[in-house]
Amino acid sequence: MPNPAVLPHAWRMRDIEPFHVMALLARARALEALGRTIVHMEIGEPDFLTPKPIIEAGIAALATGQIHYTPALGLPQLREAIAGFYRERYGVSISPRRVVVTPGASGAFLLVMGALLSPKDQVLLSDPGYPCNRHFVRVMEGEPLAIPVGSDSGYQLTAEDVRRNWSERTAAVMLASPSNPTGTLIGGAALAEIFAETQARGAALIVDEIYHGLVYEGEAQTALALSEDVFVINSFSKYFNMTGWRLGWLVAPEQYLNDIEKLAQNLFLAASTPAQLAALAAFAPETIAILEERRGKFRARRDILVPQLIELGFEIPVVPQGAFYIYANCRRLTSDSFDFAARLLEEAGVAITPGVDFGAHAASAHVRFAYTTSAANLHEGVRRLRDYLS
Amino acid sequence: MPNPAVLPHAWRMRDIEPFHVMALLARARALEALGRTIVHMEIGEPDFLTPKPIIEAGIAALATGQIHYTPALGLPQLREAIAGFYRERYGVSISPRRVVVTPGASGAFLLVMGALLSPKDQVLLSDPGYPCNRHFVRVMEGEPLAIPVGSDSGYQLTAEDVRRNWSERTAAVMLASPSNPTGTLIGGAALAEIFAETQARGAALIVDEIYHGLVYEGEAQTALALSEDVFVINSFSKYFNMTGWRLGWLVAPEQYLNDIEKLAQNLFLAASTPAQLAALAAFAPETIAILEERRGKFRARRDILVPQLIELGFEIPVVPQGAFYIYANCRRLTSDSFDFAARLLEEAGVAITPGVDFGAHAASAHVRFAYTTSAANLHEGVRRLRDYLS
Repeated sequence: MPNPAVLPHAWRMRDIEPFHVMALLARARALEALGRTIVHMEIGEPDFLTPKPIIEAGIAALATGQIHYTPALGLPQLREAIAGFYRERYGVSISPRRVVVTPGASGAFLLVMGALLSPKDQVLLSDPGYPCNRHFVRVMEGEPLAIPVGSDSGYQLTAEDVRRNWSERTAAVMLASPSNPTGTLIGGAALAEIFAETQARGAALIVDEIYHGLVYEGEAQTALALSEDVFVINSFSKYFNMTGWRLGWLVAPEQYLNDIEKLAQNLFLAASTPAQLAALAAFAPETIAILEERRGKFRARRDILVPQLIELGFEIPVVPQGAFYIYANCRRLTSDSFDFAARLLEEAGVAITPGVDFGAHAASAHVRFAYTTSAANLHEGVRRLRDYLS
Repeated sequence: MPNPAVLPHAWRMRDIEPFHVMALLARARALEALGRTIVHMEIGEPDFLTPKPIIEAGIAALATGQIHYTPALGLPQLREAIAGFYRERYGVSISPRRVVVTPGASGAFLLVMGALLSPKDQVLLSDPGYPCNRHFVRVMEGEPLAIPVGSDSGYQLTAEDVRRNWSERTAAVMLASPSNPTGTLIGGAALAEIFAETQARGAALIVDEIYHGLVYEGEAQTALALSEDVFVINSFSKYFNMTGWRLGWLVAPEQYLNDIEKLAQNLFLAASTPAQLAALAAFAPETIAILEERRGKFRARRDILVPQLIELGFEIPVVPQGAFYIYANCRRLTSDSFDFAARLLEEAGVAITPGVDFGAHAASAHVRFAYTTSAANLHEGVRRLRDYLS
């Protein structure tokens, strides 16, 4: 047997970055194994358990033993329930035909990018932003064009950004509201203006709404209220606390439904059947009551953290309205947020995410705090930060 | 509001075909809704329920409410259990590090093609074959090169096929054993010869083993016995009867593990947590006992169907050794297998899959029978076929 051959490696992999926070998380676990306690403010996952009515629906589904494939686009009754949720919560009427149930929001991104993008097509998106979003573009051989955004626009793209960065190769604009890492929403007027630009120029608008529901000032409106010609991606992971189930959805324009069904059949066959059957209980009044109580807890955590971080010297020019993240400028405390996060973990036992995980623009001046842990832990984290910084 | 804009559509979608059998299945359901009984021999999914020990493990996992994300490559204890399964069943020792748990075998195909293929890279595979396999190549902007195979090679590629179709752009060869739609295995010598070709030429060998376990003559050996440098894809769907759970795995060469972890983080975060926790019971002796009994039933069904189909005028030059499919030549009965399947459904109430779903080579002379229904139903199907053909 000869030595292992050097086998082909896809070019795309050079452009796909790992999550740097994973190395930090591994180090945190190693420190914990040595007996240190770590305050985790790096984890992008709700700490709450899946609500009981959903668990019970899942158990009842399993008990039948009937865990066969569902149709590629999802269980019809779940697609209807999701359409009903838009009607009740947002007052927006959409056809269940346009609702596609996916294996997490990840599956929805795969479908949208797969159905939209030909090689070299560009997608405009914000820097900072969630890195998977641009990686889905790259995986499908499109080109993500990350546009620097700052606190002046609430870390969101503006119609002016879209106009200034347009080219013949622009196929889509992608927004996230509330955004990861900034927790900020895009305003209704800005959204409408961007949509008008994309429509006039024959490009698609994709709005990532996976943190919808976790909004603490007023109610965010869905981009589906604008038009039937917007792609909206959502998830059962965040508001519904179903992360490990891997279930999300997509609402797509009519003209893509055939292609999306073909892609779903080929790329994943269907989303998980137990997850879909469990999610039928996600919209029940008793589930929503649990989730709304948890939303109140998230809001309280935000309100603990924001003023104390500001007091410690972080700058938070836009108070985040949603998600469970605070994107904080740390330039007064360090010139290198990556090193800062690493030292904070080692020396103070506090884990946060360095800006580099969300793009290149001003990354070394920013860190992300996640308030996916109890108020008591957040207070302890702030205490440790204060000691460390003093 | 203007009329809906014409939005971008990816070029790749022109090359991705729908499953033609889906239209047939929809028609079958419509006929059933009108009161007709249909014998289903088109469905590529075991009719058995998920075995009780797996269901019970799933219910116990749900009852904790702890359904958070697992690591991107899967639960460590499941990766170890899969490595243990290779040791016990195949006598092959692999490191659990190389085992990647995926959302169905679909997720494994995404990872392999995403990590291997740059645009225009070619992958050699057989025609007939499972269409998703070539579509995964196309989605990643590679080029599937489907090579006609016939009964003389057991519908499998040969080393000679590989040599004859090689070009500078060849990046990988993909085999499936047992194969869908033919149910045939590749011989150990042919496999070793193809592997040697790929190694000598610096290309990858990918072996789809998702029907492993469902083998009725002797025991098939895994391609992992050849070398650490083979990609092997498997699934909990078929042998383990866990279709709707959407869980599979990949064993990858060491040199790809970093890229595959990055891709898994980005493309799906992790496989379903309930499915992974349930699958921990898949290798327990009491589960294997259930599965082996079911394997006996599948074998008996095959042995009912093959001789009777031959008697009816179908040609089955290679008796399928595995999976739950019979790939039958119907040239003595029709010159158009698509039309034949459609008429058989309407006039006799028997659903089968036309050859066109598996490629272009001699497709109109072939149909696929699936024995994923009871012996009684198979007998009834044969009776209807006999009436129809006489």
